[in-house]
Amino acid sequence: MLQVYLAGPEVFLPEAIELGERKKRLCHEYGFEGLYPLDNEISPGSSEERIDRLIYRANERMIRRANFGICNLTPFRGVSADAGTVFELGMMVGLGKQVFADTNFAQNYLERTKLHHTLAYDSGRNVWRDAHGMAVEDFGNADNLMIDRAVAEHGGYPIVRHDARPEESYRDLTGFETCLRLAAEATSRSA
Amino acid sequence: MLQVYLAGPEVFLPEAIELGERKKRLCHEYGFEGLYPLDNEISPGSSEERIDRLIYRANERMIRRANFGICNLTPFRGVSADAGTVFELGMMVGLGKQVFADTNFAQNYLERTKLHHTLAYDSGRNVWRDAHGMAVEDFGNADNLMIDRAVAEHGGYPIVRHDARPEESYRDLTGFETCLRLAAEATSRSA
Repeated sequence: MLQVYLAGPEVFLPEAIELGERKKRLCHEYGFEGLYPLDNEISPGSSEERIDRLIYRANERMIRRANFGICNLTPFRGVSADAGTVFELGMMVGLGKQVFADTNFAQNYLERTKLHHTLAYDSGRNVWRDAHGMAVEDFGNADNLMIDRAVAEHGGYPIVRHDARPEESYRDLTGFETCLRLAAEATSRSA
Repeated sequence: MLQVYLAGPEVFLPEAIELGERKKRLCHEYGFEGLYPLDNEISPGSSEERIDRLIYRANERMIRRANFGICNLTPFRGVSADAGTVFELGMMVGLGKQVFADTNFAQNYLERTKLHHTLAYDSGRNVWRDAHGMAVEDFGNADNLMIDRAVAEHGGYPIVRHDARPEESYRDLTGFETCLRLAAEATSRSA
């Protein structure tokens, strides 16, 4: 059974473990084994190591073991996806693994940035700029172009966008299940 | 001459090209050739391809070609580093390349999150939570633990933290030059 690494900021929820169980049950329905970061057993008492180092190493081992990944790229504490999830997406791409991704905000990056920052239009360069004068990407992507294009190039599908109710942003698994369906299609084609 | 990929959000500055030239001159002083994303020549007129796809592919090729990377992890449009830079950090780690990184905000992730979000302390679980109830990491790191620990494990040094003046957040190269010094030390040791 193919193993899928489940990257996403839901590990920070109070009910993170239960949500991971829901994700893993869905994986099973599509014929995959889900690898969820909180499944790693971290025993800080057993060594002198820092807990964050133990967590990092356990997650890295899990990512290396996985056959492919599904990343929850829902924006987190800013206009972009959770930094930990984005790092893991990059690592999977570097390792040559197939990646799928979803987000629970359907808007474009530029639209979302306008909601959170005051932008000014630079008509000389035809670009929107933030308060630091920094250009805002306007390619119709969900996030920074490196992220959208990486998912498309190394997964074969664009980021799945779903507009969840705001209070369900980090719990709604509609887009996640779409990723599982795409992964099942992709792996049945290559089998 | 070893080639270093220069990842960072300064590509969005109005004077992005000049800043890249400054970075590349500094690289040269330390015996390296800097590879700056904007050095890629993108010719949208010459093909039917989307510009963002051309940029992605050119950056990915540059990353694969580089011997190591230096990432500017200064927080960008939120509490974490620029998503594109974090993706590239992850990709370099997945490709087995050495990575160095700096940030122009010296504070911890938790301190910085408190400046931008209203947090509540969950005394039952001994953790700070944001308005979504999501836990905020408190390991004394500069960013999400995956980022700090990846730099330490795959570069050999912690993220270099420097407190730049706010208006120089994306232009101050003090921490970047420290990374170059560390890289020169590391490569002379392994030579």
